[in-house]
Amino acid sequence: MLLVEQVKVSKGSPLVTCLLEGSGGSGKTAMAASIGIDSDFAFVKIVSAESMIGLSESSKCAQIVKVFEDAYKSQLSIIILDDIERLLEYVAIGPRFSNLISQTLLVLLKRLPPKGKNLLVIGTTSEVGFLESLGICEAFSVTYHVPTLTKADAKRVLQLLNVFAKDDIDSAAEALDECDLLVYASASWDDHCISHMLQTPLKKLYMLVEMAAQGARGGSSEAIYSGKQKIDINHFYDILSDVVLVSR
Amino acid sequence: MLLVEQVKVSKGSPLVTCLLEGSGGSGKTAMAASIGIDSDFAFVKIVSAESMIGLSESSKCAQIVKVFEDAYKSQLSIIILDDIERLLEYVAIGPRFSNLISQTLLVLLKRLPPKGKNLLVIGTTSEVGFLESLGICEAFSVTYHVPTLTKADAKRVLQLLNVFAKDDIDSAAEALDECDLLVYASASWDDHCISHMLQTPLKKLYMLVEMAAQGARGGSSEAIYSGKQKIDINHFYDILSDVVLVSR
Amino acid sequence: MLLVEQVKVSKGSPLVTCLLEGSGGSGKTAMAASIGIDSDFAFVKIVSAESMIGLSESSKCAQIVKVFEDAYKSQLSIIILDDIERLLEYVAIGPRFSNLISQTLLVLLKRLPPKGKNLLVIGTTSEVGFLESLGICEAFSVTYHVPTLTKADAKRVLQLLNVFAKDDIDSAAEALDECDLLVYASASWDDHCISHMLQTPLKKLYMLVEMAAQGARGGSSEAIYSGKQKIDINHFYDILSDVVLVSR
Amino acid sequence: MLLVEQVKVSKGSPLVTCLLEGSGGSGKTAMAASIGIDSDFAFVKIVSAESMIGLSESSKCAQIVKVFEDAYKSQLSIIILDDIERLLEYVAIGPRFSNLISQTLLVLLKRLPPKGKNLLVIGTTSEVGFLESLGICEAFSVTYHVPTLTKADAKRVLQLLNVFAKDDIDSAAEALDECDLLVYASASWDDHCISHMLQTPLKKLYMLVEMAAQGARGGSSEAIYSGKQKIDINHFYDILSDVVLVSR
Amino acid sequence: MLLVEQVKVSKGSPLVTCLLEGSGGSGKTAMAASIGIDSDFAFVKIVSAESMIGLSESSKCAQIVKVFEDAYKSQLSIIILDDIERLLEYVAIGPRFSNLISQTLLVLLKRLPPKGKNLLVIGTTSEVGFLESLGICEAFSVTYHVPTLTKADAKRVLQLLNVFAKDDIDSAAEALDECDLLVYASASWDDHCISHMLQTPLKKLYMLVEMAAQGARGGSSEAIYSGKQKIDINHFYDILSDVVLVSR
Amino acid sequence: MLLVEQVKVSKGSPLVTCLLEGSGGSGKTAMAASIGIDSDFAFVKIVSAESMIGLSESSKCAQIVKVFEDAYKSQLSIIILDDIERLLEYVAIGPRFSNLISQTLLVLLKRLPPKGKNLLVIGTTSEVGFLESLGICEAFSVTYHVPTLTKADAKRVLQLLNVFAKDDIDSAAEALDECDLLVYASASWDDHCISHMLQTPLKKLYMLVEMAAQGARGGSSEAIYSGKQKIDINHFYDILSDVVLVSR
Ligand SMILES: Nc1ncnc2c1ncn2[C@@H]1O[C@H](COP(=O)(O)OP(=O)(O)OP(=O)(O)O)[C@@H](O)[C@H]1O
Ligand SMILES: Nc1ncnc2c1ncn2[C@@H]1O[C@H](COP(=O)(O)OP(=O)(O)OP(=O)(O)O)[C@@H](O)[C@H]1O
Ligand SMILES: Nc1ncnc2c1ncn2[C@@H]1O[C@H](COP(=O)(O)OP(=O)(O)OP(=O)(O)O)[C@@H](O)[C@H]1O
Ligand SMILES: Nc1ncnc2c1ncn2[C@@H]1O[C@H](COP(=O)(O)OP(=O)(O)OP(=O)(O)O)[C@@H](O)[C@H]1O
Ligand SMILES: Nc1ncnc2c1ncn2[C@@H]1O[C@H](COP(=O)(O)OP(=O)(O)OP(=O)(O)O)[C@@H](O)[C@H]1O
Ligand SMILES: Nc1ncnc2c1ncn2[C@@H]1O[C@H](COP(=O)(O)OP(=O)(O)OP(=O)(O)O)[C@@H](O)[C@H]1O
Ligand SMILES: [Mg+2]
Ligand SMILES: [Mg+2]
Ligand SMILES: [Mg+2]
Ligand SMILES: [Mg+2]
Ligand SMILES: [Mg+2]
Ligand SMILES: [Mg+2]
Repeated sequence: MLLVEQVKVSKGSPLVTCLLEGSGGSGKTAMAASIGIDSDFAFVKIVSAESMIGLSESSKCAQIVKVFEDAYKSQLSIIILDDIERLLEYVAIGPRFSNLISQTLLVLLKRLPPKGKNLLVIGTTSEVGFLESLGICEAFSVTYHVPTLTKADAKRVLQLLNVFAKDDIDSAAEALDECDLLVYASASWDDHCISHMLQTPLKKLYMLVEMAAQGARGGSSEAIYSGKQKIDINHFYDILSDVVLVSR
Repeated sequence: MLLVEQVKVSKGSPLVTCLLEGSGGSGKTAMAASIGIDSDFAFVKIVSAESMIGLSESSKCAQIVKVFEDAYKSQLSIIILDDIERLLEYVAIGPRFSNLISQTLLVLLKRLPPKGKNLLVIGTTSEVGFLESLGICEAFSVTYHVPTLTKADAKRVLQLLNVFAKDDIDSAAEALDECDLLVYASASWDDHCISHMLQTPLKKLYMLVEMAAQGARGGSSEAIYSGKQKIDINHFYDILSDVVLVSR
Repeated sequence: MLLVEQVKVSKGSPLVTCLLEGSGGSGKTAMAASIGIDSDFAFVKIVSAESMIGLSESSKCAQIVKVFEDAYKSQLSIIILDDIERLLEYVAIGPRFSNLISQTLLVLLKRLPPKGKNLLVIGTTSEVGFLESLGICEAFSVTYHVPTLTKADAKRVLQLLNVFAKDDIDSAAEALDECDLLVYASASWDDHCISHMLQTPLKKLYMLVEMAAQGARGGSSEAIYSGKQKIDINHFYDILSDVVLVSR
Repeated sequence: MLLVEQVKVSKGSPLVTCLLEGSGGSGKTAMAASIGIDSDFAFVKIVSAESMIGLSESSKCAQIVKVFEDAYKSQLSIIILDDIERLLEYVAIGPRFSNLISQTLLVLLKRLPPKGKNLLVIGTTSEVGFLESLGICEAFSVTYHVPTLTKADAKRVLQLLNVFAKDDIDSAAEALDECDLLVYASASWDDHCISHMLQTPLKKLYMLVEMAAQGARGGSSEAIYSGKQKIDINHFYDILSDVVLVSR
Repeated sequence: MLLVEQVKVSKGSPLVTCLLEGSGGSGKTAMAASIGIDSDFAFVKIVSAESMIGLSESSKCAQIVKVFEDAYKSQLSIIILDDIERLLEYVAIGPRFSNLISQTLLVLLKRLPPKGKNLLVIGTTSEVGFLESLGICEAFSVTYHVPTLTKADAKRVLQLLNVFAKDDIDSAAEALDECDLLVYASASWDDHCISHMLQTPLKKLYMLVEMAAQGARGGSSEAIYSGKQKIDINHFYDILSDVVLVSR
Repeated sequence: MLLVEQVKVSKGSPLVTCLLEGSGGSGKTAMAASIGIDSDFAFVKIVSAESMIGLSESSKCAQIVKVFEDAYKSQLSIIILDDIERLLEYVAIGPRFSNLISQTLLVLLKRLPPKGKNLLVIGTTSEVGFLESLGICEAFSVTYHVPTLTKADAKRVLQLLNVFAKDDIDSAAEALDECDLLVYASASWDDHCISHMLQTPLKKLYMLVEMAAQGARGGSSEAIYSGKQKIDINHFYDILSDVVLVSR
């Protein structure tokens, strides 16, 4: 990852901040995590709402500040601010959010680490419009858009899963596409990453396939995953139409 | 129930989350409860506002988190989040709701159980539009719509109740239909479930029939339920028109 | 009262909830109270804002919950939630109201009493539109509209009061009608109830008649109530036009 | 005052509540106070914001409730709620006001005194529109409008003050009238009351006359009040035009 | 000052309240202070936000009430409420302000001092529209508008400052006028006051002249103020155009 | 810096307040800091949100007041209020901000230092519209606009960086210009300052150049900064188009 290189060799910019934005499930967290894992930095830390459930705003703030201050002690550090809208307790109605936490981020994203220390901050969000109106987008030095899966991508995933008859794959991909269900990290990733995808596919695609694999009367899933049987494409259609996708 | 099977056999998706949405009295809670009862999972828990009356937002949060953490200890668990809008203390005016609880749910619905543990979360709501604007719908992997009772369904219920003269059943069903009173879990349920319905019919339908059974001067209800007498269809009409159904 | 009968004989519906709505002074509280008095239930309790002046929201909540829990101990109970908008501290500007109390009511109105206990809940309100937007109307199983007094009803009341000359009664009723002052519980009540009305007539009608009875120079009221004198219809007109009825 | 008589002789209405509304300075407080003074009731109490400056909402509530409970102990009582909008801490921007106090008043205005005790509550306000939207107007049994001073009234006051030359009185009244300054309790009051008015005229009229009486170079006021000199009408005009009457 | 006289000789109006309103820097505070200084009243007190920075609303309230209660002890007192919008913590966005303090002022401005004590209250504000919507303007008995400086006034000031060449004064005044910079207490003040103005001219005018006096390369200011040199009019123009006057 | 001179020699204006406003990264903080450093004043202090992360509003207030009170003790002081919108915890949604801090600034910006003490206050902001609606702009005696970098400025910077081939500099500057990326302190600064700029260029320009310097496969950066190689202009274009600049 080039950003990591930049932080490593950087002389003029001890602080590199980068925002990954894209719709839900497009692979932002996976991308940020793999940057952290693939780097050989001493300090890599994910800041996520999962580990702060039920804490007060000010405790969350204190935890976030603590992570930055720990990072300032290492020569090369990465901080991942995962799902920033969730860190901010954002909800569209109102909208409501924690201004205490948003002010903290606005300041931390601009505060330079001490001399000799370099820091890469990666943020992820699926609410880029909201972050922009807070001025948080502008506080990041760069913003990358993580695109969603194309129909061609979906077909490729279905082929790899190998649970449909060859002739059904096109129709299945088409049906999924119409459901507008697929949100996915696309093309620009390297092959190593695509092979990962087979093990942990998109939550929703995976779930739909799994539901279909059980068959109309249940129990067929083992046969299908072992390759002895294929998913009945009509049963797959039924499941798709059962699942109400409440639209905006 | 297929979702239960999926959770049981699942390898890729340790967390299955499913939202049942439909109008008041359509049978969502009954459906969720029967899934829980019919499963043979070690841990089945209903989270409902009834057991948390008057608690502070943060105590409610803590209780909900506790239920999830208990579930993480069993290999196969079901958590029913009943009437999510009530858990969120939602009221349309404003609207007002607890953002603390909504943030907690948003995180819990995405947090994976520890390795080897599988969890099915079923939510119910009659305010799907509100949950959508909170982003809670999207946080569930699938959403099912629980439809309301059709006129044909109502007729079938009245036949089973056997309190009207045969010739009056059509008119009674018609009258009810015009009142737009019937909200009901429909067709796709199995027979075992329909027989249940006779013992505990829809609250409102049941109440109207019960009121009519007492007759214009009271006291006739025993005779009617024992089958010796039938409900006077005109008295039934009177009761329907008395009951003011304030419309939106 | 039929609702009372229903609760008594009920097998399927241990919880009957009924909302009386109508404009101010239409006799909702009187109606609810007389149902309570006329029943022979062991537990009859009025929950009203009068006994909770100045309490905090949470104390009010606790008191309301306490009443329900006490009721669950009797086999047959009636709870009257009088002037629900006042319990909710409702005011149209904003609007403002206690969501804590409204959530409590929403849950209590649906929570079933323990097995073998039957409960009738009667609510009264003159702000049915507000209760509807809270979802409280829908939480009641039935809603009755308590109508206002017609001109014919007013005339009947004036005749019974016997303070006007026979020829003036029509004009007096007409004048009152134009003032749009009369709000009253009407026709469908039984005779026993109408005789009550003579002792405690509508607050406003009563007050106007009383003011008129004092005469232009005061002091004549005793003569009028003792029947020796009649109210001067012109003086009655003067009083009606003096009293500013600020219109919406 | 007839209301007082009514409370005294009343049998059916132990609680009489009456709202005096009119623009600022129209004499509402004076009217309410004189009713209290002229009555021979044992308990007469004014509830006013003046004696509760800086108190918390709940302390104010407690004080108001205390006054009512003290009144319930006397057989005949009068409570004056002066400047209700000020008691409610009302301000048009927002609007803001104390809902705690407004709920307290809404309940107290309807709560009947114990048997055998009669209570007259007189409220005053110059924000009748606001009180109406709170439902407080409707909570009073009657509302009287206190009208403002007419040009003829003003002239009469100026004649009584006797500080202008006879020929100037018309012009002075005219000038005042154009300034739209005069807000005053009018005609329907008795002579006894008008004679009072000479001692304590309207604050603003009084002030203007006083300013004019000092003359262009000051010091002439004694001569004018002693009748030796008259106010120079042109100087009076100057003062009127100096005083900026910021219009709405 | 005539208001002072009025308070002194007043018999009928023990409380005189007067609001000075005008745009920022028009001399309101100076005018109010000079009234206080020139009076020979025993008690003269300025209530200003400067001495209450960071205090809570209720402490500010308590301080203001204290000043009034101290004033009630002197026979003749003046209280200056300087920059009322600042006392109220007013900000146009929202708008936000302290209702606690505004209610306190509304009551204090109408509360009469004890018998025999006379009080003059002078308020100043540059947000008269805001005060009006609070009802505070109406609570003052009179409101004076303090006008801004005319071009002629500005010229007169520049002449007195004597830092421009005679021929440049017109152009300088013109340039200032176009900048719409001058806000000033005008004409109606007496000469004694104008001579004051030379020592402490308007903050902004003073500052501009001072900046110009330093010359393009700095250091010339002493020469200019000692009269040995005049300000280069072109340099003055440069400074005027540099200073960005962000317009509404 | 002339403002510094003015404060030094000032007799009439012991308090000079000056606001620097311009878009993000235009060099406001740098300009303010260099004024402070270049002055020989005893007391120079920067008040910035960075040193107050997570503090409560009132603690921030207290710290700000403390700085002013310390300044009042020195004969010549400079206080830099950096990023005032951040001090105010401003966020555009709502908008929200600390009124406590804004009131404190409004008062401090007008409060005169004690006799004999001179104070220069420099504020910076990139939200001048917001500050204006708070009345904070008006509270400063002058406002300077810090302009953004022109295309010519950018070219000059690129020439000094010497990382592009001579023929590519025009195209690179053009490409940057189209990205609307460059916000910069412009022309009116002296040469001494421009030479500084080479060492610490604009954060964003610097970052882009650094990213490009690494080359398509990484690792070339050293060669480029040592001058052995030039940046491939096409790779520079790629980077520019990768970086999503979410527009308003
Ligand atoms: N290119 C990829 N290769 C392999 N797995 C992928 C790829 N992209 C996404 N995934 C998988 O898809 C799933 C969803 O991705 P991820 O959670 O990173 O999305 P997200 O954008 O962070 O979603 P959210 O907005 O809900 O946080 C993950 O399980 C992830 O492992
Ligand atoms: N298919 C069915 N068979 C038997 N009983 C049913 C069926 N559907 C609904 N019922 C009964 O109807 C009543 C209302 O159903 P339930 O309470 O589950 O509805 P709900 O959708 O959860 O309503 P709410 O929105 O008010 O929570 C219950 O008493 C339930 O037992
Ligand atoms: N049919 C009736 N017979 C006798 N008295 C009646 C009747 N209807 C109303 N009243 C009397 O009229 C008065 C007003 O009725 P009540 O207080 O019950 O009205 P309400 O609808 O509850 O008014 P609110 O909305 O103000 O609470 C009461 O004194 C009641 O006794
Ligand atoms: N008819 C009257 N006779 C004698 N004095 C009167 C009369 N009407 C008003 N006044 C005097 O005018 C003054 C203003 O009247 P008052 O304070 O009662 O008005 P208000 O309507 O209560 O004003 P506010 O709305 O400001 O409270 C008082 O000093 C009162 O004594
Ligand atoms: N007529 C005058 N003669 C002498 N000095 C004056 C005159 N008018 C104003 N000044 C001076 O102008 C300056 C600004 O006046 P002042 O502070 O009283 O204005 P203000 O209206 O109170 O402003 P703000 O709205 O900012 O409070 C003061 O220094 C004051 O001394
Ligand atoms: N004329 C200049 N000479 C040298 N360096 C400059 C110049 N102008 C700006 N810089 C540099 O550009 C960078 C951005 O400037 P600075 O932080 O002062 O901008 P700012 O306007 O305060 O931005 P923000 O609005 O984000 O606070 C700094 O690193 C600063 O050193
Ligand atoms: Mg993610
Ligand atoms: Mg349910
Ligand atoms: Mg009632
Ligand atoms: Mg009054
Ligand atoms: Mg001032
Ligand atoms: Mg800056």
